[in-house]
Amino acid sequence: MIDSSAHPGYMLRKDDYLKRMRRIEGQVKGIQRMIDDEKYCIDILTQVSAVTKALQAVALGLLDEHLAHCVVGAARSGSEQEADIKLREASEAIARLVRS
Amino acid sequence: MIDSSAHPGYMLRKDDYLKRMRRIEGQVKGIQRMIDDEKYCIDILTQVSAVTKALQAVALGLLDEHLAHCVVGAARSGSEQEADIKLREASEAIARLVRS
Amino acid sequence: MIDSSAHPGYMLRKDDYLKRMRRIEGQVKGIQRMIDDEKYCIDILTQVSAVTKALQAVALGLLDEHLAHCVVGAARSGSEQEADIKLREASEAIARLVRS
Amino acid sequence: MIDSSAHPGYMLRKDDYLKRMRRIEGQVKGIQRMIDDEKYCIDILTQVSAVTKALQAVALGLLDEHLAHCVVGAARSGSEQEADIKLREASEAIARLVRS
Repeated sequence: MIDSSAHPGYMLRKDDYLKRMRRIEGQVKGIQRMIDDEKYCIDILTQVSAVTKALQAVALGLLDEHLAHCVVGAARSGSEQEADIKLREASEAIARLVRS
Repeated sequence: MIDSSAHPGYMLRKDDYLKRMRRIEGQVKGIQRMIDDEKYCIDILTQVSAVTKALQAVALGLLDEHLAHCVVGAARSGSEQEADIKLREASEAIARLVRS
Repeated sequence: MIDSSAHPGYMLRKDDYLKRMRRIEGQVKGIQRMIDDEKYCIDILTQVSAVTKALQAVALGLLDEHLAHCVVGAARSGSEQEADIKLREASEAIARLVRS
Repeated sequence: MIDSSAHPGYMLRKDDYLKRMRRIEGQVKGIQRMIDDEKYCIDILTQVSAVTKALQAVALGLLDEHLAHCVVGAARSGSEQEADIKLREASEAIARLVRS
């Protein structure tokens, strides 16, 4: 039996996600330095928008793999209830992304 | 003469912004650990949405102070051209935020 | 055999979606009247944000039903290719929503 | 004395805004027809994203003119209190746009 939470779909691209999150960490530290050095607000805002976009791209990637692995997997497992739970979780995550 | 880029308005709350950016850095590192530990994608997505919201709040705060200090300052300085530049910059930053 | 594109999942709530879209049409006409009557920009912006939110809610609802019917249906049909197409379409629609 | 709420800045481009809002009304009616004709959900979602983007563009345009006319006007009028009110209104409108 496959336990989908122990083997999440994104694991195929784990290194890629880690690399992207480390780059985001670097950008966040860069923004801290800009604030500390009292840089121009508009330049800081440009960086904040860049980080937000990078985070959104990570989120969309994770969501794709979640749909492809967990949701489709649950649908194929034949368990109506399992598929419903996965779908509701995915819907709520999408709503949070769209509204954030 | 006031050089608005050397004394950005957000400086009154510099420590607050630095504190918020350090908390965001901690959240970004937490997401890295979640990926490394192969946590459930939906839980990671929840954290990514939380970081995005925190970044947006920082951006809205910086933008408010930019409008209150740089844009209003330029308007009061009497220089039509200076006010126009500040307004265009602010508009572009707002558009990036709305679209990101 | 079920042809998912001929019987889209949202059809179960077709009347509800039509009612919501007619309310949105009414709000859009209301904004036209506000512009024509030269109302205060901030009040118009408040209405525009309300319409955007209402459209997003419709989109999230349609997307949920798409995932629940078309994507899960394709997954259960056993056709790997069909499921892949549905997933890619859904991913692209989600990305457009998140970025719009 | 200029009463900024009686002569909003966007009035210079009133016809342009009315034209855009009528196009949006047409798109909203188009979505109603698509739902009534039971079109494919993904195609409806594409249209909803297009309307959301068009509304955002109108909102960003109105906001620009509000900043350029009402906020800068209040700043130049010399009334600290008036400028503060206009700024707070603008900030709240921006926050609603960013979050919607």
